[in-house]
Amino acid sequence: MNRHTISALTNNHPGVLQRIASLFSRRGFNIESITVGTSEIEALSRMTIVVAGDRQIRDQLILQLGKLIDVIKVVPLDLEPKLSRELMLIKITAQPGQRQEIISLAETFRCSIAHVGQETMVVQIVGETSHNNALLQLLKPYGLLEVTRTGETAMSRG
Amino acid sequence: MNRHTISALTNNHPGVLQRIASLFSRRGFNIESITVGTSEIEALSRMTIVVAGDRQIRDQLILQLGKLIDVIKVVPLDLEPKLSRELMLIKITAQPGQRQEIISLAETFRCSIAHVGQETMVVQIVGETSHNNALLQLLKPYGLLEVTRTGETAMSRG
Repeated sequence: MNRHTISALTNNHPGVLQRIASLFSRRGFNIESITVGTSEIEALSRMTIVVAGDRQIRDQLILQLGKLIDVIKVVPLDLEPKLSRELMLIKITAQPGQRQEIISLAETFRCSIAHVGQETMVVQIVGETSHNNALLQLLKPYGLLEVTRTGETAMSRG
Repeated sequence: MNRHTISALTNNHPGVLQRIASLFSRRGFNIESITVGTSEIEALSRMTIVVAGDRQIRDQLILQLGKLIDVIKVVPLDLEPKLSRELMLIKITAQPGQRQEIISLAETFRCSIAHVGQETMVVQIVGETSHNNALLQLLKPYGLLEVTRTGETAMSRG
């Protein structure tokens, strides 16, 4: 199954996320992630939605989204070169003797150390989802204590 | 009004986000952002929810969330030191002669340039929401073309 990334500009009303989530749920869309935040226009929010499925699922989703009153504009991002980024915080077990090798690993992945505790470290990474997953696999052997991720946010390069 | 950050561990079912968004909407909670992603346990997702309101609103939200069947655990993150991060992509107008000053500004804010186009640049920043907003204000005079942000993801430091 392919992953499709869709960007939507919506009114910044309290019920919008609920109506969109409800549309997805009723139609059985397999949503991988949604991120929402204020856009460059104060009254509008911008959502990035990632859906797994074939081309028909993607086209249906775009059509249905466009029909909602609070949705101003829907932009499919899989037809043009896009910037796609996800933020992830990974808390792992790290004894003092292990810190240096974890810092080296973080440097290789161009990510940073967000916190160092007595026996823990938090690694912060920003990148495409597949890049982040690769680091996660490498950190697993240290013992994953907590993982939080934002889901993908994206825009066209043009 | 205060901002409260709450973390929730939920089943990774298709309808969970819809049920949570619907609960917020019905109760009139003023949700600033929700981010969702897979957690350190494959079958579970972790959500970070930011709500604006007084202490009573926060307590109500925690109580109501905890009652949902697909919610495994609710952790308020405003009682202990937390790591809080948001990712933002900012596309601005940038003539070739302006690039160097934008790169310098990005370095000051410890953020990076995600893309350079003929007459545009995309700045990528990760930080606390207030830090990101400060950069956004500084970039406004160049002409904001597109802003996408993920909303806050957070975890305790301990």
